[in-house]
Amino acid sequence: MTGQADVIVIDWGASCLRAYLCAESDDGLKVLAQVTGPGVTKVGRSFEAVLSNAIAPWSKQYGALPIFMSGHIGSSLGWHEAPYVFCPASPEDVAKKVIQFESNGHNIYVVPGISCAEPDAHRDVMRGEETHVLGWLNLDDAHRQGKHLLCLPGTHTKWVLVESGLITVFKTAITGELFDLLSHQSVLIQNQSNEIDMTAFERGVRLTLDSDSGQFVHGLFSVRTLQVLGDLKPEQAKSYLSGVLIGSDVRAALMAPEWTISELSSITLIGSQSLCRLFSKSLEIKNISTGNIDDKQTCLSGFSAIYRAVL
Amino acid sequence: MTGQADVIVIDWGASCLRAYLCAESDDGLKVLAQVTGPGVTKVGRSFEAVLSNAIAPWSKQYGALPIFMSGHIGSSLGWHEAPYVFCPASPEDVAKKVIQFESNGHNIYVVPGISCAEPDAHRDVMRGEETHVLGWLNLDDAHRQGKHLLCLPGTHTKWVLVESGLITVFKTAITGELFDLLSHQSVLIQNQSNEIDMTAFERGVRLTLDSDSGQFVHGLFSVRTLQVLGDLKPEQAKSYLSGVLIGSDVRAALMAPEWTISELSSITLIGSQSLCRLFSKSLEIKNISTGNIDDKQTCLSGFSAIYRAVL
Repeated sequence: MTGQADVIVIDWGASCLRAYLCAESDDGLKVLAQVTGPGVTKVGRSFEAVLSNAIAPWSKQYGALPIFMSGHIGSSLGWHEAPYVFCPASPEDVAKKVIQFESNGHNIYVVPGISCAEPDAHRDVMRGEETHVLGWLNLDDAHRQGKHLLCLPGTHTKWVLVESGLITVFKTAITGELFDLLSHQSVLIQNQSNEIDMTAFERGVRLTLDSDSGQFVHGLFSVRTLQVLGDLKPEQAKSYLSGVLIGSDVRAALMAPEWTISELSSITLIGSQSLCRLFSKSLEIKNISTGNIDDKQTCLSGFSAIYRAVL
Repeated sequence: MTGQADVIVIDWGASCLRAYLCAESDDGLKVLAQVTGPGVTKVGRSFEAVLSNAIAPWSKQYGALPIFMSGHIGSSLGWHEAPYVFCPASPEDVAKKVIQFESNGHNIYVVPGISCAEPDAHRDVMRGEETHVLGWLNLDDAHRQGKHLLCLPGTHTKWVLVESGLITVFKTAITGELFDLLSHQSVLIQNQSNEIDMTAFERGVRLTLDSDSGQFVHGLFSVRTLQVLGDLKPEQAKSYLSGVLIGSDVRAALMAPEWTISELSSITLIGSQSLCRLFSKSLEIKNISTGNIDDKQTCLSGFSAIYRAVL
């Protein structure tokens, strides 16, 4: 680590902590060092000790830098709750509701989550993803104009509609969590091969992408049936299951009454390359083009925007 | 235990063994005693020892009675495989494919499963449920005439179409397995209250019963959202989740291209009283009447028919 450090930013979700030591520049935050640690649900209430331990070398070298955090750490089950900002939400609304407290001499800032809370409309909540969306808005002035649909695949897929720079509505599917549970603890999968078989994946996608709900709840069992009947190899089963789940998630997004897909020129995927590839492939089947952005980039860009707005 | 015993029948599924010591009479099998034990997936390959232990008092008193078994025990992961009978399948077809072997002097008969195996049609498999369906057919001559849809809720819901006494097609949904995984191991449920709250259950049912797949994969997360937003009490969450899952299962069955609901006068539910009540309630919302039969009755009736056909 060399040079001046200005801030520590942390994506502290339910299952993982990702901290970055950063220097500020005209181009935004530049990462000097990074470290990972245990997620919010894994540390009891020892948030202060876990944080202090994770960033100890940085504190020693740079003193009590300001720390920005987002994710589950700001929930009612986290360290200090940062109440939700209601949709429609602008980057400024989010920055205004950042909460602040002190820990071991560090000023700590926690980014609030966002909620859709209208009683008779779709209701939903996010924590952590708002920082990525703000980061995406911060990457290009054009993103603040017109209507855009972002998809953030992960443990929970978030589909986020952005209109004229505001987050107006979003939807969550627990696709990744279902995949994890069904892969490891259901009757569907015995072979734990993690190699993606794109043929099996696409076959799964097509089962659910083109059909009504029946193909999901009744179709999940086909993961087992096809193996029993010798029509799917055990080592293909996880890829096929992934397709069934992602096809269903994508179909639900395409049919969502909250937006009209034909009005959008493309869908922006924000996430890991491997997951974005699977969503991109599924959308391609419906002739929908996608752009991919790495989630580390949107995370840093989001914290950069919030850091500037707050300090 | 008094009187003459003729046969032991065992429903030996993946998660549980249920054995009944029975006497035969003109009215079918009469239970003299019953015992439960570990399921097929829980005993390694020690099937003989587990069985021998479970029925030891009966063997001591009555000697080596014939034993009839159905369920996962006849699968490729069970003791001896009884290959599937293809649809359309009659009770006679099933009885003909019963396999037989010996263990500790007992003649053991294993009922085969049934499969829908047409390449371009719906494909599915069942093991254990066929005995209940045969039992239902055996209860009343009228059941062998016309078209009937049976629903067997459980870990895996089976929807079975019976036409003129033949099982012609069936569909599986892993509703119970999903409920179990999502109740105990997902972000959706923290409160483990098992009391069914019918208002919350119906609210969940209505979310999925009336809507396309989007309300399932995107709607599951509402179990959490509604709690976070204070619109669902934590102790209602499991009932609501149960409704979301069962509503989706029922909707898929009502929309299934393999049968036409309007052609059926009612749907017969075979299962535990508590589960049948939830499915019955969901079908009632769609003005579909149901009849309920306890699964112990269909199990014994099914084994009774097979016993007579085989011995």
